[in-house]
Amino acid sequence: MPTPNSPPQPTADSDAEQAGLWAQIKAEARRDADAEPALASYLYSTILSHSSLERSLAFHLGNKLCSSTLLSTLLYDLFLDTFSNDAELRAATVADLRAARLRDPACVSFSHCLLNYKGFLAIQAHRVAHKLWSESRKPLALALQSRISDVFAVDIHPAATIGKGVLFDHATGVVVGETAVIGNNVSILHHVTLGGTGKAGGDRHPKIGDGVLIGAGATILGNVMIGEGAKIGAGSVVLINVPPRTTAVGNPARLMGGKDHPSQHKDVPGESMDHTSFMSQWSDYII
Amino acid sequence: MPTPNSPPQPTADSDAEQAGLWAQIKAEARRDADAEPALASYLYSTILSHSSLERSLAFHLGNKLCSSTLLSTLLYDLFLDTFSNDAELRAATVADLRAARLRDPACVSFSHCLLNYKGFLAIQAHRVAHKLWSESRKPLALALQSRISDVFAVDIHPAATIGKGVLFDHATGVVVGETAVIGNNVSILHHVTLGGTGKAGGDRHPKIGDGVLIGAGATILGNVMIGEGAKIGAGSVVLINVPPRTTAVGNPARLMGGKDHPSQHKDVPGESMDHTSFMSQWSDYII
Amino acid sequence: MPTPNSPPQPTADSDAEQAGLWAQIKAEARRDADAEPALASYLYSTILSHSSLERSLAFHLGNKLCSSTLLSTLLYDLFLDTFSNDAELRAATVADLRAARLRDPACVSFSHCLLNYKGFLAIQAHRVAHKLWSESRKPLALALQSRISDVFAVDIHPAATIGKGVLFDHATGVVVGETAVIGNNVSILHHVTLGGTGKAGGDRHPKIGDGVLIGAGATILGNVMIGEGAKIGAGSVVLINVPPRTTAVGNPARLMGGKDHPSQHKDVPGESMDHTSFMSQWSDYII
Amino acid sequence: MPTPNSPPQPTADSDAEQAGLWAQIKAEARRDADAEPALASYLYSTILSHSSLERSLAFHLGNKLCSSTLLSTLLYDLFLDTFSNDAELRAATVADLRAARLRDPACVSFSHCLLNYKGFLAIQAHRVAHKLWSESRKPLALALQSRISDVFAVDIHPAATIGKGVLFDHATGVVVGETAVIGNNVSILHHVTLGGTGKAGGDRHPKIGDGVLIGAGATILGNVMIGEGAKIGAGSVVLINVPPRTTAVGNPARLMGGKDHPSQHKDVPGESMDHTSFMSQWSDYII
Amino acid sequence: MPTPNSPPQPTADSDAEQAGLWAQIKAEARRDADAEPALASYLYSTILSHSSLERSLAFHLGNKLCSSTLLSTLLYDLFLDTFSNDAELRAATVADLRAARLRDPACVSFSHCLLNYKGFLAIQAHRVAHKLWSESRKPLALALQSRISDVFAVDIHPAATIGKGVLFDHATGVVVGETAVIGNNVSILHHVTLGGTGKAGGDRHPKIGDGVLIGAGATILGNVMIGEGAKIGAGSVVLINVPPRTTAVGNPARLMGGKDHPSQHKDVPGESMDHTSFMSQWSDYII
Amino acid sequence: MPTPNSPPQPTADSDAEQAGLWAQIKAEARRDADAEPALASYLYSTILSHSSLERSLAFHLGNKLCSSTLLSTLLYDLFLDTFSNDAELRAATVADLRAARLRDPACVSFSHCLLNYKGFLAIQAHRVAHKLWSESRKPLALALQSRISDVFAVDIHPAATIGKGVLFDHATGVVVGETAVIGNNVSILHHVTLGGTGKAGGDRHPKIGDGVLIGAGATILGNVMIGEGAKIGAGSVVLINVPPRTTAVGNPARLMGGKDHPSQHKDVPGESMDHTSFMSQWSDYII
Repeated sequence: MPTPNSPPQPTADSDAEQAGLWAQIKAEARRDADAEPALASYLYSTILSHSSLERSLAFHLGNKLCSSTLLSTLLYDLFLDTFSNDAELRAATVADLRAARLRDPACVSFSHCLLNYKGFLAIQAHRVAHKLWSESRKPLALALQSRISDVFAVDIHPAATIGKGVLFDHATGVVVGETAVIGNNVSILHHVTLGGTGKAGGDRHPKIGDGVLIGAGATILGNVMIGEGAKIGAGSVVLINVPPRTTAVGNPARLMGGKDHPSQHKDVPGESMDHTSFMSQWSDYII
Repeated sequence: MPTPNSPPQPTADSDAEQAGLWAQIKAEARRDADAEPALASYLYSTILSHSSLERSLAFHLGNKLCSSTLLSTLLYDLFLDTFSNDAELRAATVADLRAARLRDPACVSFSHCLLNYKGFLAIQAHRVAHKLWSESRKPLALALQSRISDVFAVDIHPAATIGKGVLFDHATGVVVGETAVIGNNVSILHHVTLGGTGKAGGDRHPKIGDGVLIGAGATILGNVMIGEGAKIGAGSVVLINVPPRTTAVGNPARLMGGKDHPSQHKDVPGESMDHTSFMSQWSDYII
Repeated sequence: MPTPNSPPQPTADSDAEQAGLWAQIKAEARRDADAEPALASYLYSTILSHSSLERSLAFHLGNKLCSSTLLSTLLYDLFLDTFSNDAELRAATVADLRAARLRDPACVSFSHCLLNYKGFLAIQAHRVAHKLWSESRKPLALALQSRISDVFAVDIHPAATIGKGVLFDHATGVVVGETAVIGNNVSILHHVTLGGTGKAGGDRHPKIGDGVLIGAGATILGNVMIGEGAKIGAGSVVLINVPPRTTAVGNPARLMGGKDHPSQHKDVPGESMDHTSFMSQWSDYII
Repeated sequence: MPTPNSPPQPTADSDAEQAGLWAQIKAEARRDADAEPALASYLYSTILSHSSLERSLAFHLGNKLCSSTLLSTLLYDLFLDTFSNDAELRAATVADLRAARLRDPACVSFSHCLLNYKGFLAIQAHRVAHKLWSESRKPLALALQSRISDVFAVDIHPAATIGKGVLFDHATGVVVGETAVIGNNVSILHHVTLGGTGKAGGDRHPKIGDGVLIGAGATILGNVMIGEGAKIGAGSVVLINVPPRTTAVGNPARLMGGKDHPSQHKDVPGESMDHTSFMSQWSDYII
Repeated sequence: MPTPNSPPQPTADSDAEQAGLWAQIKAEARRDADAEPALASYLYSTILSHSSLERSLAFHLGNKLCSSTLLSTLLYDLFLDTFSNDAELRAATVADLRAARLRDPACVSFSHCLLNYKGFLAIQAHRVAHKLWSESRKPLALALQSRISDVFAVDIHPAATIGKGVLFDHATGVVVGETAVIGNNVSILHHVTLGGTGKAGGDRHPKIGDGVLIGAGATILGNVMIGEGAKIGAGSVVLINVPPRTTAVGNPARLMGGKDHPSQHKDVPGESMDHTSFMSQWSDYII
Repeated sequence: MPTPNSPPQPTADSDAEQAGLWAQIKAEARRDADAEPALASYLYSTILSHSSLERSLAFHLGNKLCSSTLLSTLLYDLFLDTFSNDAELRAATVADLRAARLRDPACVSFSHCLLNYKGFLAIQAHRVAHKLWSESRKPLALALQSRISDVFAVDIHPAATIGKGVLFDHATGVVVGETAVIGNNVSILHHVTLGGTGKAGGDRHPKIGDGVLIGAGATILGNVMIGEGAKIGAGSVVLINVPPRTTAVGNPARLMGGKDHPSQHKDVPGESMDHTSFMSQWSDYII
């Protein structure tokens, strides 16, 4: 069962780690500003003028998510206050940055992810909305959800729980429902839905175990469990539990290797990002 | 056959109903403003400073959809003028708000839907574009369509006809083609396509009967009829008529119960929002 | 193999063609401005005040893609400078406008496409990002990619190569990976993914031949070849090469006519936009 | 004594006059838009897209005076509502436009004044603030005053009364205190102060009779009466009543012709705009 | 000699005083928001959503002074950080608010001054610029000066020293030079210049003693001393020292009562705001 | 007689001079950006990202003077096009920058003037408006005048002629009429008026000779000649010719030394900026 927030305890270590990462981000931005004067203003305003990662992130999110009726200064204040007072959130940010850098070969630097990855930014803004939700500041949390959905086309209910080291790659169209839980080290591609089952309330959305990989366009509906290290193929439609370390593909989804004795893999797909190794077992005989 | 706009006749009753709903929306917003000062400015500017639902909606849409070349004042004027002069549109807005509140367990209040639901907002803006289209003000209607697609990632051709009590849940990525017709009390999830069949013009898009439910990511192509009360499973690809009160699932879609004697349900899926009850018949034997 | 940029040689002819098209666009805009005063300001600022197509396009993209940290004047300058100095880019713009006008029955005029088609605008902005990438101005190219993804929900890696006469219809949710290549005269619907296979770098994305048509929601993963004139059905998941002039449908995709002797069509689907003629062979027997 | 608002009674005549003026303004704007495409967008958005002078003025003022915390839509609504419901205000606007056109040789057209004269715009916005003040909506009136002072550098207390046919030429730096009254057909140059006398409340500001001309930089302090048709020289400091049709100049001001038998002129300086005819009597013997 | 900053020592008392004033400001704003829904959004965003006077002021100044190249979030951060870390600045803000409320009969509430008085806002922003200057952050201080001059038409060199309890009434056009010093409890009307004497650097601007009143449009040039409690008449041009508690009027200025035995008053003009009591001695015999 | 534009002939020399000055401006901005990260974004966007002084200036003016109805991209284009095609304008810009740097002891660097001096910026924008006027593009020229007056509180009629090496110090409130001519190397303080004489058209504004200094708040009215090297004291009101190299002070102005044998100075006051040396002759005996 995913328990994404179980052993947090961010300590001096994680603060030191954050400081190191921030130094690296600034070095990257400085190198880019020197090489590309047309981008220097952007890099200074978003990164190089700030004294910490949380200030940079609060500034960037405030300016991205603001509207004519929700001013950037208000959002900046809200983000900065929340990140500054919650070491857990800061540690999750660091883990998410590392996840993108490690798993996405198109991610050329930490600063690239911090500035340009809508999935990363949507998750960080969601973490703030989630905290507001847990403090019963629901209307503000829902307003944030709406802005994230407008700006990034990523729709995460503020009640949903998201672990650390999570990557939403490309991210456009991701929908995560109210009672969904996403474990640690999960990778989710764009157009993925973790949806509900109807108009009744209650626990009705998927639970995604640690290390799961969910391919582009997959739809997972209902209070089902995707076991740790499982892999869901692109375009799959899943309505039933998927055992750990197995692969489900197709619409309707079937388990690779068969329902009774599904194949099990050793790697952690959420980290290895292997989307297509089941190809030989699955599609080859079809086309 | 869907005849979404057939017996409208909004009367004093519907005006009274609208006034009652508006009073409730203001009460909700006042409660939220009192509880959350950080959001009060947003709630006053969007709801509490307005004297009617149509003024609030025109203001909110004008500020959401404006750009540097299409000013908020121009759009506000256009929306306000259209809503004020068309009781039918106002009645449809009320029905859509009630639909979201009843069918979506994540919808905690009418004001939540009014402010934050991009599907609701996209539909209301579309209704104005549709009216402009029907008055041969096509370039303006198309400019509105483009802004709705940019801002909400919902792309509805202004010629498309949409009934009342319609819910676009999450809404990101919905595409509705020029000759599509959507009946009353329909619920459509995100990433749904009601698309055409090629480069020839003419009547080439789906007709969606009253009370239909279309799951996330479903693609319906061509001038096909989805019978009233039918249900289209998430991720389905449908290119042929679906009989009333039946369920089509899969890619390519098949009818639950078989082509010749499909199972028929009693409920109205567009209202009951039952996405997954066919699961036992369909996926269980697969995974 | 798609070689989209091979025989470019834009000459005086293409300049003359561009001038003719531009005259037509201005005539359309003037007609619309006369008919609809509410839109005239928009049409003058975006089209009628400009002396050339590239100035109009640079202005429109600069205003669409700007943010509080990437100013419109900077982007305008960048777009104008790039378009002005690259006749190839200008010729591709013309070809893309013609493609939309010819293939999309909902496209009522060239000016409609120029102003309102997010797919068209995303491709033009991508061409500039691609040029920056090829000149090793990678951080700026990636910042542009991010803005295109935020504003149009179209995510094209700046390294991806796109031919001429390409139509992204509706466009929301399209994702094109780093090593993808798209040939000439290709039509791609919304929610289409040309994705990679994992966390390893290298050549890992699809190659789309000339004249291919890819239906809504199709997902193509890995360094596979979609042969010229092939057709990929809506919602298909493709992980293996598809031969020229064949049709692949389903999840997992199968070839129409069977793996060994697939049916071959004569038309160029990317131009004919025939999404559904395979219906009789495929879905009919199912529903 | 100036009684600027005494016999208003705007009738069908003034409505007809307004309609005629509006037709002329549109004709001017159309001519300019045709001649200068770079300005056409501006002219369409501010004038040519509107159906009446009050809509154009409300739009222009709303966009000029808005800020990030006072949105243009809110101000537009307020201005449009006030102008639409008060024929007196509309008649005053017409009179002010005619005043500028007749008296200022640099005023080349009515549209030039409507769009570009900060004095004209400040007075029209003040008329709305004044109406709000008289309806005891004081905080809103004061917020408007502040925006007018920020944007136009013209500071008019909303309680001050201003007649019709008033010209604030150049206007920068004009200050008009709470209990000041300005008659009809008055012309006031920039940097003019109609100020108070101390920290006590009550009636403490100047009363300016009909047809008065006040030169640039003149300072008039206290509850003094500037008689009808009087002329106050540029840079004068006036603290005592000035009789009708006389001229006061200097710091401290003295009456031309002497205190006991001041020279009297026949013309109406507020309309003739004769700033300097006293020169021969005054400065010549000095320099 | 004015030593405006000599015995500051803001203590718990001044913090308590600030808290009391802040409570009163919020009460005023709440009353106004209840009475005027159209203004409530403005009042919530600027005052009612904030937890302290310095946060409200930093927010308001950040939004007023921002531009497309100096973002509101950056300015907000700068103002908030400076006010939060300097009790002296906060005490001066409180004293300035009290000065406006006491001395200006048109100032109906503290919130009115906080939101709407450009003189008050310019002085508070200057205090931050002055602190930056004193910390050798001169380019940033000068950029602030420029924004203050653009937005409020008040041009105060960041090196100038300004005491507490200072009122710039109306404020448009005030210019204060680099080496000027303004004492405590000074009142300065609009268009007042405290200017230099030429192109040589060094100490070259006026020193204004405690309790001085300077009338509208007065120009004081050079390193001259305006003695404590002196009064400078409107429109005066002063180039020589003015003794304490005397009145200088005219252009060129002369001392009331004569150079050798000038009249002396008992009151503190900067507090009593008596602009015109010398009238009987001065102008009466002229007009 | 001032003939400010007579022998222009900007040659390779002036281009070289401009290049040198631009290099110095960039060096200053780089130094400031290094010292003050909070300002670096501003300095990169306004100066360091640009390849020439005219691009930097066009960018800065476009962003300063834009409004919601006159977009920054349009203005940028207009300014850049005009500066790029007129070497005379570029040479005048350089001369004005040097004038500010030499004459104003508060001007610490060229970049300080370029970014922050509203007088400098107003003059450069006026030069473009003046060129438009001379090309009969009057409505656009007048729209620019209006924006300059709104944003900088400097109101210069586009027909007015301004020489090179001109400094408007502080600049707020300067008004320059339609037929005014300002020679080379003139210095004008804030609140100065070069005004007309009535409602008749024709040549009706002052002619200011080379090297003239006009003090703060001086008002010069009518078609009078201020001879080369003359000095007009602060607050003076001048309605008659002033001979070369003499000093006029007071309201009404008198010549120092008397009307018949006025004192003559040797220096060029517009360059020496000596505002107050006449003090000993003038004010001392008064106070």
